[in-house]
Amino acid sequence: MNDCFYCNDPVKLQSLMIEICELDHAIIYLNRDQKHKGRLIVCFKEHKTEYFQLTDEENAGFFKDMSLATKALDELYHPDKINYATFGDLMPHAHMHIVPKYKDGLQWGAPFRDGGVDKMFLTDEEYNVMVTEIREMIEKLK
Amino acid sequence: MNDCFYCNDPVKLQSLMIEICELDHAIIYLNRDQKHKGRLIVCFKEHKTEYFQLTDEENAGFFKDMSLATKALDELYHPDKINYATFGDLMPHAHMHIVPKYKDGLQWGAPFRDGGVDKMFLTDEEYNVMVTEIREMIEKLK
Repeated sequence: MNDCFYCNDPVKLQSLMIEICELDHAIIYLNRDQKHKGRLIVCFKEHKTEYFQLTDEENAGFFKDMSLATKALDELYHPDKINYATFGDLMPHAHMHIVPKYKDGLQWGAPFRDGGVDKMFLTDEEYNVMVTEIREMIEKLK
Repeated sequence: MNDCFYCNDPVKLQSLMIEICELDHAIIYLNRDQKHKGRLIVCFKEHKTEYFQLTDEENAGFFKDMSLATKALDELYHPDKINYATFGDLMPHAHMHIVPKYKDGLQWGAPFRDGGVDKMFLTDEEYNVMVTEIREMIEKLK
């Protein structure tokens, strides 16, 4: 058993994110820190560390799922640009941070970052609204 | 004519990066700032701003090209992890920064960043060596 929390630590995972839905190749999570409205995590279903380790079909499917989820954000929240990032030096399970950016909003014009910035947590009711509307929009756009 | 330097300002583009090769859906560039050894830019050939604007075929092709380029880096330089990021709030032509990370190297364990860090430029001869070896490895892996 590896020590990846995406694979093996649901308590830690759920402290950081909330599952929205499972697609063919990715699981879509709402990030609990919502200082960028609509921030998601798109996580490959299996434990792989680099995208080139995926088969062509898995790679295409993962990024198709990512595009579907980001299209849903665009429809719902109308960000002016979306930032996408995979880091994971210390948590190398392939996952992409999806960070909507808004003109005149936090960190517009610069790479998004978490260091030195307050997190913004919502109420359970507010999370439920977002999870539901994103899930429904993804279903609609499929 | 848009004001995107990827599309319309080759002088600015070449001040920042050097073309390695053109693949089916992406152009692969070597980043002139090589403080992370092997850093590339993978640029979609057309001017689109979000990945969900690509057709399914274009999206799959772009990320297949990205995976090929990163596999070449892995073969040549053996990074311990690769970081991938698309920001582009102010330069929204779809492109991915490919940033190899090395244990005990710069910014290991944290998201890569450029702010507040010296750039590292190479000699023309050193760039030529890297461009040639990456291009040849991509050809070999195709």
